[in-house]
Amino acid sequence: MAKTMTLLWGAGSPPCWRVMIALEEKNLQGYNQKLLSFDKMEHKSKEVLDLNPRGQLPTFKHGNIIVNDSYAVCFYLENQFKSQGNKLIPDGQEEQAVMYQRMFEGLTFYDKLNAVIYYDWFVPEGERHDSALKRNKEALTTELKLWEGYLQKVCVCKGQTQTDTACFDLFKLAVFLLSAERYPKLGEYYNLLKERPSVKASWPSHWLENPKGQDTLKDI
Amino acid sequence: MAKTMTLLWGAGSPPCWRVMIALEEKNLQGYNQKLLSFDKMEHKSKEVLDLNPRGQLPTFKHGNIIVNDSYAVCFYLENQFKSQGNKLIPDGQEEQAVMYQRMFEGLTFYDKLNAVIYYDWFVPEGERHDSALKRNKEALTTELKLWEGYLQKVCVCKGQTQTDTACFDLFKLAVFLLSAERYPKLGEYYNLLKERPSVKASWPSHWLENPKGQDTLKDI
Repeated sequence: MAKTMTLLWGAGSPPCWRVMIALEEKNLQGYNQKLLSFDKMEHKSKEVLDLNPRGQLPTFKHGNIIVNDSYAVCFYLENQFKSQGNKLIPDGQEEQAVMYQRMFEGLTFYDKLNAVIYYDWFVPEGERHDSALKRNKEALTTELKLWEGYLQKVCVCKGQTQTDTACFDLFKLAVFLLSAERYPKLGEYYNLLKERPSVKASWPSHWLENPKGQDTLKDI
Repeated sequence: MAKTMTLLWGAGSPPCWRVMIALEEKNLQGYNQKLLSFDKMEHKSKEVLDLNPRGQLPTFKHGNIIVNDSYAVCFYLENQFKSQGNKLIPDGQEEQAVMYQRMFEGLTFYDKLNAVIYYDWFVPEGERHDSALKRNKEALTTELKLWEGYLQKVCVCKGQTQTDTACFDLFKLAVFLLSAERYPKLGEYYNLLKERPSVKASWPSHWLENPKGQDTLKDI
């Protein structure tokens, strides 16, 4: 089945990695994949634009069906391969509610993280303000404390990474950039997550060797 | 069943409306609801913060289960009440793929819309730049053309609003703010959507009387 799937991806992109982890979790190894270069603007190539008018990665195709948003791919794969591999959506009513809630809240985390890490990228030189970057950092700190608090209320255990985090809560991998002293529960979670077979199997060798943002985040 | 549900909501908030429409679609009328005032900062009241640490609306409770993100509520309701009311997620493989993809792409639309409408709200006076607002408007125009293109490729028909748009693609309602001449397919879609029973039933009487952004968007 995986042989009819093609993933175009770029290194250093958490959404691409999310899809790769989901494919591993659903036992869909052996899909066609092609690593493209953001630096060479290959995400704006005709090959990508023909499948993805936004010119973004991941770009994913299954037979004739195209799904490009990384979360959309997770939902799609889960629904199409319900009984295969690991469940990405838990069965229990309460567990489902938490998983959906945290998944969409994770988007807010990403927004706040990117507003700090990529400030110079998003904001042209003449429009940058120290006050804005300071505010963005404060917002990210507040956000991280919220997540640290969520994890203090629940057991951080191996089983938890099984269903509710493998692909949807991938963002917590970003906490490797942060101080484990200030965010011990997130650190604990990260340590469990990085040992997951799907995460290990999809960890690109050249990924995160020079992680963007480590310096920017050191005082968060 | 709806009697064990409580929705705290605010007028003028598309996410709140999304939840109300989803509840209508799933035949969950009769839930407890309370209209709070953003102007009076009631979304930061203890009543809300006890259920929603972000102090945002909607805040939604079903029995002891709390789900606050509007998309998370839609997924939650659909999964808990699969056979009740209308399906929010279509059965077909291709239809599902499109629905998931468009749903998450819709978040990008919202980001770009808000970056124009709420520019003065998000950006403190000393940090505002005409060049930034101009860029945001151009990005929104590009985004809208993309969606207009999507709709040109598919039949805009009543059935389509049944499953794939009732709550997830609600954003298209925002096109009432736009020129129907420049975006005819979006306008056509809006006209169908606003006739949906769930949309009509949940349209608050004081909603959109003075829509924010009409002036800002007139040249988009």
